[in-house]
Amino acid sequence: MLGGMQDFELRVPRLLDHAEREHAAREVVTHWADGRETRTNWAGIARDARRLAQALEKLGMKPGDRIATLAMNHGHHLIAWYGAIGMGGVIHTINPRLFDEQLVYIANHAEDRVLFYDKLFQPIIDRLKSQWTTIEHYVCFDDGSFDALIAAQDGNYRWAEGPERAPCMLCYTSGTTGNPKGVLYEHRSTVIHAMCEVSPMVFELSSRASCLPIVPMFHAAAWGLPFAAPMAGSKMVYAQVNDPAVLCRLMNQERVTHSAGVPTVWLGMFQYMDAGGEPPRHLKLVTIGGSAAPRAMIERIMGMGVEVKHLWGMTETSPIGTAGSPPPDWDEMSLEQKLDRVTKQGQIPFGVELRVVTDDGAEQPRDGTSSGRLQIRGPWVVKRYFKAAADGIDADGWFDTGDVAVIHPDGTMQITDRAKDVIKSGGEWISSVELENAAVGCAGVAEAAAIGVYHPKWDERPLLLVVKKPGAEPTPAEITAHLAQHVAKWWLPDEILFVDALPHTATGKILKTELREQYRDYRLATAA
Amino acid sequence: MLGGMQDFELRVPRLLDHAEREHAAREVVTHWADGRETRTNWAGIARDARRLAQALEKLGMKPGDRIATLAMNHGHHLIAWYGAIGMGGVIHTINPRLFDEQLVYIANHAEDRVLFYDKLFQPIIDRLKSQWTTIEHYVCFDDGSFDALIAAQDGNYRWAEGPERAPCMLCYTSGTTGNPKGVLYEHRSTVIHAMCEVSPMVFELSSRASCLPIVPMFHAAAWGLPFAAPMAGSKMVYAQVNDPAVLCRLMNQERVTHSAGVPTVWLGMFQYMDAGGEPPRHLKLVTIGGSAAPRAMIERIMGMGVEVKHLWGMTETSPIGTAGSPPPDWDEMSLEQKLDRVTKQGQIPFGVELRVVTDDGAEQPRDGTSSGRLQIRGPWVVKRYFKAAADGIDADGWFDTGDVAVIHPDGTMQITDRAKDVIKSGGEWISSVELENAAVGCAGVAEAAAIGVYHPKWDERPLLLVVKKPGAEPTPAEITAHLAQHVAKWWLPDEILFVDALPHTATGKILKTELREQYRDYRLATAA
Repeated sequence: MLGGMQDFELRVPRLLDHAEREHAAREVVTHWADGRETRTNWAGIARDARRLAQALEKLGMKPGDRIATLAMNHGHHLIAWYGAIGMGGVIHTINPRLFDEQLVYIANHAEDRVLFYDKLFQPIIDRLKSQWTTIEHYVCFDDGSFDALIAAQDGNYRWAEGPERAPCMLCYTSGTTGNPKGVLYEHRSTVIHAMCEVSPMVFELSSRASCLPIVPMFHAAAWGLPFAAPMAGSKMVYAQVNDPAVLCRLMNQERVTHSAGVPTVWLGMFQYMDAGGEPPRHLKLVTIGGSAAPRAMIERIMGMGVEVKHLWGMTETSPIGTAGSPPPDWDEMSLEQKLDRVTKQGQIPFGVELRVVTDDGAEQPRDGTSSGRLQIRGPWVVKRYFKAAADGIDADGWFDTGDVAVIHPDGTMQITDRAKDVIKSGGEWISSVELENAAVGCAGVAEAAAIGVYHPKWDERPLLLVVKKPGAEPTPAEITAHLAQHVAKWWLPDEILFVDALPHTATGKILKTELREQYRDYRLATAA
Repeated sequence: MLGGMQDFELRVPRLLDHAEREHAAREVVTHWADGRETRTNWAGIARDARRLAQALEKLGMKPGDRIATLAMNHGHHLIAWYGAIGMGGVIHTINPRLFDEQLVYIANHAEDRVLFYDKLFQPIIDRLKSQWTTIEHYVCFDDGSFDALIAAQDGNYRWAEGPERAPCMLCYTSGTTGNPKGVLYEHRSTVIHAMCEVSPMVFELSSRASCLPIVPMFHAAAWGLPFAAPMAGSKMVYAQVNDPAVLCRLMNQERVTHSAGVPTVWLGMFQYMDAGGEPPRHLKLVTIGGSAAPRAMIERIMGMGVEVKHLWGMTETSPIGTAGSPPPDWDEMSLEQKLDRVTKQGQIPFGVELRVVTDDGAEQPRDGTSSGRLQIRGPWVVKRYFKAAADGIDADGWFDTGDVAVIHPDGTMQITDRAKDVIKSGGEWISSVELENAAVGCAGVAEAAAIGVYHPKWDERPLLLVVKKPGAEPTPAEITAHLAQHVAKWWLPDEILFVDALPHTATGKILKTELREQYRDYRLATAA
């Protein structure tokens, strides 16, 4: 070579090394379920992660081995991530809300050798221990076992070295069909993703930020915050329980500027504030992902003087696919214009590419109306699922998200449905999500699900299943009249049926597959 | 492999592709020396860069070939960067302020094959053309030649592919001794550096930013802004001339939020404003590098409601080494505390590591007082100079910056001197920079240079050379009394000599080597 720049593997432990050197005293605070609060800082996390790496090696763990957690958010969980990754292992966060069958499958498929867990989940351990065939060591995070394990080490340890394309983390997707699939993050993909996240495009993190991630650490790598925060030197605040009173108090006590979570978290916060609870006073940015936040929720948080942004992504995308970002003319926009923008899923950051294609694979224009299957590619997008026999992407690297979306002329992406839930009527697509959102806006409707059922002329037509609010008696005609104000006429359901309840997945989403199965032979009156 | 993430080469043209896809309409504005203003946008820059890449291939350019520029800041210059890099070439920015001998050496050493230049520099071309042995094509940026070259292409072009460790840019350092040395940036180092720069740690760039880089494009890759701006989708505003009236007007007209330049630029801006010129109204962040800004300058800019940050770095570091960043308790700090922090060189961003070592190589503590040679390593730091026979770093990857610095307990780095300028008295170090800064604060002193001269007892003692302000007659006693208020007693110069002028480098720095040579045999009275 004629000259050049330095070699530098993009390895995850460098993030913690940086925080230890440059932001040693910036705190990591944990509020435990029993009410205790413990404090450490980035120097302490680094010290304890080195001790844990030593302990794991003494337990016989080798680079590449999977080390699992079944736990909520706390500083010990963060130490486990960096300890496992630091010794060259792969941290595998298991979602404790999954069904037993999935929990058994996932840990066995991952061949987890160690499981760190919260004592809250002891019943799961007791129930499934005999079915987990590879776990050799169980260590409870919050009964003193974890502390004893690391206290026995001297911390004189250097992180395992290795290539930047080596794996560092494993997360399984909780799909609605088939077995869960594992996404194996790499050191390089994780560091590049974290660099994207600290930018103003996503979390805008600096050492001034104090972050309370409400998103659980077992959801899509906790949205990457455990990696982005030490890169920026941000303070971290964790709560082992998601009690709105605890969260609001912590936010004020720890001067939390950044929060991240699913929309339902904010419903609880609003109820708490409406009942006289003190609202968070230092928040600057609330990021919402997992599902779309309602317009009214966004408006209320913005009214508190807080920036709101949607994140869209999935386990397969590390997870950042899009993030809301104010446009250059933000200050000149009306509130309605701002809300129009913020309610959508956001813009595309450097690194990933998104496109919308028809079922034939033709790319749709970015006109805000031409919908199609959303595809993504980039350095932090999955190439091949764990142990899969083939790549999960097409020849050009596109990963099909399973979402249906439009892209607007200004680059804003808007999810309109899940591909498998979209109702295909006469060659055109009807968004089940938009029908459901409109329906729950109707007085007396507690929950609604729209599915496509067979129609001899149109292929499919919408059937709307409605759960009434207690004591309310909305009629199909009232609901149809309400829907007609929000969707095109040809989108209106052919029939509306009232049901006592709707089936849900472990993560609270409506189980459309079960509904489609249940109504597979349903004969619409319009099909007669 | 058991699974994993996508392959993705960190190549520079991806930055422009991203801007073209996601920020197509965000403008790139140029104010030319003749008063014309032209506007394009990221889509236009991308289109023209593809055309230029085509044109360069038709001229016979091959991947790896060096394509040079001798030009100020404008949109055409930006197109040349991306066109040259896009066809796999290496863009080589030559500093037109260098001496002829250096200009000849640099272009021949680089083996430049094409030279793009501003007509302002036609005299340089005419003077040196016969001595440049490798340049085959000369294209003027602003006489219509450049426009004609790209207008002849259809732009149907795909960027050259290649490894991320391939070179993309060459910049020569203008050292005070020996031949200039070339730093060969790579695609990977440039993209990772840009990701660092968009973060709140450095430029905090987003699509809302409007940047006017006053730093010339031939200085240390224009501090990386031509790479960071398209990553963030920022607007770019260029001026071919550095006239304060033009800059202030452009800043208001184009709603400039971000500016970056050397301190002297602001002296001109202040004079303009003091004479009744309209101050910039939209600025949010002023970054200052190249040399340290005086405290009063920082205070004045901060008084305009603008954040100020120092950048420290060098051509060898792409150039970001440190950047000022407000600490978590910024809002509680007094103005004096804020100024104390901002006047220093800043904090260390993720990616690079800095340390201060003694002449024996022992690492100094971060106590704010233990000074030593400043060393740096990281992915955007030079490994080997262009065509050098050996690496320019030690076995552990440390590059010696030639600066003398301290690091404070909070991680703030402060340059105290250049290593070769430090005065070594009795085993202790005296900072020539601090002596000079203190001296120019004395009434009647226009310029000052402190050098070490031989002393039989102390090895070296300081000699201060002073240029008086016109009409002023400061005495050595007055100057010494003034200095005594700012530096330790044992730092006070043994003698003060008045001179008519001091020698300077092409970039305006005092030529200490020449002074040391001139006073090599000077016999201090104290040495008698």
